[in-house]
Amino acid sequence: MDAIEARRRLGELGLSEADAAALIEHFADCEARGKASHGFSRVEWLANQRFDADARPKLLAAAPGFERWDGNGALGYLVLHAVVGSQVAAPPDDARVVVVQRCFPSGALGYWVRRLAECGLVAALTATSPRRLPPPGGGEPLTGTNPLAIAVPSSDGRPIVADVSMGGVTHGDVLRGEARPEQLVPFGGEQSHKAFALAVGLELLVGALAGPEHGAVLVVARPDADPVPAFRALAASVRLPGDA
Amino acid sequence: MDAIEARRRLGELGLSEADAAALIEHFADCEARGKASHGFSRVEWLANQRFDADARPKLLAAAPGFERWDGNGALGYLVLHAVVGSQVAAPPDDARVVVVQRCFPSGALGYWVRRLAECGLVAALTATSPRRLPPPGGGEPLTGTNPLAIAVPSSDGRPIVADVSMGGVTHGDVLRGEARPEQLVPFGGEQSHKAFALAVGLELLVGALAGPEHGAVLVVARPDADPVPAFRALAASVRLPGDA
Repeated sequence: MDAIEARRRLGELGLSEADAAALIEHFADCEARGKASHGFSRVEWLANQRFDADARPKLLAAAPGFERWDGNGALGYLVLHAVVGSQVAAPPDDARVVVVQRCFPSGALGYWVRRLAECGLVAALTATSPRRLPPPGGGEPLTGTNPLAIAVPSSDGRPIVADVSMGGVTHGDVLRGEARPEQLVPFGGEQSHKAFALAVGLELLVGALAGPEHGAVLVVARPDADPVPAFRALAASVRLPGDA
Repeated sequence: MDAIEARRRLGELGLSEADAAALIEHFADCEARGKASHGFSRVEWLANQRFDADARPKLLAAAPGFERWDGNGALGYLVLHAVVGSQVAAPPDDARVVVVQRCFPSGALGYWVRRLAECGLVAALTATSPRRLPPPGGGEPLTGTNPLAIAVPSSDGRPIVADVSMGGVTHGDVLRGEARPEQLVPFGGEQSHKAFALAVGLELLVGALAGPEHGAVLVVARPDADPVPAFRALAASVRLPGDA
């Protein structure tokens, strides 16, 4: 599937042109970055998801340093699109915690924090999703893959973007037949208890702040320093997170 | 070494009784939780660290939802002791980002977030330390072990506390001869690029907010929901992060 076909299919799902464009930008960026599991394959998948094509996310509360949003039935992609756009339009004086309740699917979290870093903001974002990761000893799934994405802007124009799922493979890889369901366990092999611990911590952090449905928590801040150029120099030829 | 000997040695290093007590509480808690690398072995290590026993951390800036602290030459343990005590004394209305510049050593981060969760607050904390983790392909160390600790309070009185270092072993394990320096690499074996990405993201997040010296970033928030009891029920007999 390409962008033109995706636009047609998303239109059939009732999405407006602007909303479809926001999704296509996300899918195309993921394809370009080698994250096909978050790319155009999701268009087919979306046809089987329940969402309200006309719903708009709502800002429920705003205070200095805090916002609470509700997805209000809209697709998670469009919820985060609105949340990120709002941060760019009105950045915090120092830092802000943004709680997003009812936000699914959230897409590739690195995409959202990269947008913030490209606008000069430091960002960390996590989000929950259906329980798919069993504990290291096996058993029923207890947590989502619960990625953590962190982006740091740079005066050289090349932000660092770390985006790490706690699963050894993505659910998208399983959807596309490129991984087996039994590979969807906390990453790390003998040390998978560490990825499991992070998945549990993030699951409950989001649950405690955003309530019982899938949600997201974003921290966005103005940087006080510019550590990326010196870090790139130190790393020399080492490939850094988020680089092509 | 026990608490009595530790108190004597810490007094010789110039620390007040109250400061020594704060350190001993931290070391004893780590020993009790099986984290000996953050326990009383650190008393000997402290004798070789440079710090000002009379220095007091300073609150440089405070706004709704944001604080900036400076360690001001004090031991990192005592800086975080002051920062955490201040959050408990005056919790945020909703959430607060706390940037702590010049904060080393930070100890076991799980200890600090547990204290916040025991007072009913959700907390996430990361901190930087000397570069000890090389990239997955080998080479010079680029990041600290940069742990991420997350604690979520529970109405049943038993918070969940995840505390994950991005290193396969701790520097403390190496100090105590229980691990070899070459084991101090990003955890995860074949997927160590994930732990490396998290270590880099956290390194630069802290660097961008707290400046060039080792620092810490804390997010502290009032919970809006109480997900832990249901999660414990779902997990049944699975050991959860931070449990004894």
